[in-house]
Amino acid sequence: MTDPHPPLIRSAEAKAAFATHSHPWNDKSEFSGVQLGQMAGLKRTGVSLVHIQPGKESFVYHSHEREEEWLYILSGSGTAEIDGKEHRVGAGDFMGFPTPSVAHHLRNSGSETLIYLMGGERRDFEVSDFPKLGKRMIRKGSEIEIYDIADAKPLGPLG
Amino acid sequence: MTDPHPPLIRSAEAKAAFATHSHPWNDKSEFSGVQLGQMAGLKRTGVSLVHIQPGKESFVYHSHEREEEWLYILSGSGTAEIDGKEHRVGAGDFMGFPTPSVAHHLRNSGSETLIYLMGGERRDFEVSDFPKLGKRMIRKGSEIEIYDIADAKPLGPLG
Amino acid sequence: MTDPHPPLIRSAEAKAAFATHSHPWNDKSEFSGVQLGQMAGLKRTGVSLVHIQPGKESFVYHSHEREEEWLYILSGSGTAEIDGKEHRVGAGDFMGFPTPSVAHHLRNSGSETLIYLMGGERRDFEVSDFPKLGKRMIRKGSEIEIYDIADAKPLGPLG
Amino acid sequence: MTDPHPPLIRSAEAKAAFATHSHPWNDKSEFSGVQLGQMAGLKRTGVSLVHIQPGKESFVYHSHEREEEWLYILSGSGTAEIDGKEHRVGAGDFMGFPTPSVAHHLRNSGSETLIYLMGGERRDFEVSDFPKLGKRMIRKGSEIEIYDIADAKPLGPLG
Repeated sequence: MTDPHPPLIRSAEAKAAFATHSHPWNDKSEFSGVQLGQMAGLKRTGVSLVHIQPGKESFVYHSHEREEEWLYILSGSGTAEIDGKEHRVGAGDFMGFPTPSVAHHLRNSGSETLIYLMGGERRDFEVSDFPKLGKRMIRKGSEIEIYDIADAKPLGPLG
Repeated sequence: MTDPHPPLIRSAEAKAAFATHSHPWNDKSEFSGVQLGQMAGLKRTGVSLVHIQPGKESFVYHSHEREEEWLYILSGSGTAEIDGKEHRVGAGDFMGFPTPSVAHHLRNSGSETLIYLMGGERRDFEVSDFPKLGKRMIRKGSEIEIYDIADAKPLGPLG
Repeated sequence: MTDPHPPLIRSAEAKAAFATHSHPWNDKSEFSGVQLGQMAGLKRTGVSLVHIQPGKESFVYHSHEREEEWLYILSGSGTAEIDGKEHRVGAGDFMGFPTPSVAHHLRNSGSETLIYLMGGERRDFEVSDFPKLGKRMIRKGSEIEIYDIADAKPLGPLG
Repeated sequence: MTDPHPPLIRSAEAKAAFATHSHPWNDKSEFSGVQLGQMAGLKRTGVSLVHIQPGKESFVYHSHEREEEWLYILSGSGTAEIDGKEHRVGAGDFMGFPTPSVAHHLRNSGSETLIYLMGGERRDFEVSDFPKLGKRMIRKGSEIEIYDIADAKPLGPLG
């Protein structure tokens, strides 16, 4: 029987598993990639290989409450917005976000494919904020709920 | 004041922080590298950039009890021993080790520098086995104790 | 110097530390108690001794997403509502709630003080639901936010 | 179908599930008890009701590396050895052991049955020390290995 999660994933197998995604809140979000860690059976650690074409963006400007996240640029160049400031990034640059994290976002502002590895923790329960949209995402396993941050109330007498 | 752990580590800063290490149990162990995750302040996630010269090896053939680990080859070529079998690996190949992991080891069997990213979980408490040496390592924070696996006894009446 | 968290808390010391609390969402909520685990310095495990007078109630009917919880009745009698059903409980009865938990609540429906030990996990991040009130509580450390469950939206295009 | 882990365990059901145990390293170790938390399906939190007869003892003087532990005396009286000192304990006394814990042990030094609740964390991996016996126990799930503490070596060149 073939191991469903062999420890070694060949470059060609990874390429064959590429799929394209986009985030519904950002018209420019479009990337293709493969979850290498998941293919090898990792349960608590994510590692993905991602391609973004010129003019396209990763997700939406967001921060994480509990899951540490990192990116390592393999080739191409892009613009990373980190905590409100823009940085031009290229091959060999690394970004790491301890939690609770500052907000960040990556877009391909160059002329060739932007290729990077990204990864981090995979927890059963996570809260992410989207400060430019005023949204909070609560994820339990693969179930997702979205709240307006403005709707949050302190604990106190019910109205 | 400068942020001691800026989220963005430039390629040149990473190179400037390279240091050389070797494992005391393997004469051929010699590699240089930098802990990118730690530089950016990640606490539970390790990401390191590692260089191994031709003929040299990473650590010692070992397995992990609790910490997930992965490697992604950036350039060069090497030989990975995984659970008793040897595999020739090169750029774009990924290895991931769910826990409890099979034993593994990497050596530069090519003619140019073997460069890879490796990472995984960083836990407060870990047990690693070195099956070819019959040793067990118990690590609590940065304190390390070594036992001979052959000395382990089951729970039962004291002799 | 006196140990701020001695491992042994005498019965008299525990009694001297009793304080009275009530939950703002339930007019009948009123209990006095002491956090024994915290007094002894436990960080991830809660154990509290609680007294409820006749006619009074513990908190509000609620469920936990991640924190396991248990109760052990020491003396007196009460009514436990568990997942929509009422149970009369007395000395020696135990309730345990694996997560995600069913909703539950306890009130003193007897004529003497209802005394119990309660405890469970203390996590840095927790979500509790109050199904009769349609409220969701998100707690990060000691920061609390309340949402209306009805406001939750699925991930999809923004309106 | 009957719920294999109902949230409510009646006092009579708990009594019916009592079993007697002893620790192989202590001739005087003998206690009967029931794992209430496990009966209710708790996975990470242990709560047990324990009886020790006069002259008998719980386990062996030991400490925990990672699992928080606590005891609450319900009736009877005993002697707790905590970090080398003896304390007479009785109803309403609580002991809590943050980790890494001081060593401790409990024996019934009175004339009636010593009854207590004990509990704490249940982790997949634990190390316990038995300082009077010079033993270290490494437990992975339900697999147990015993080492002599004196056999531990630092990381260094192999002999």
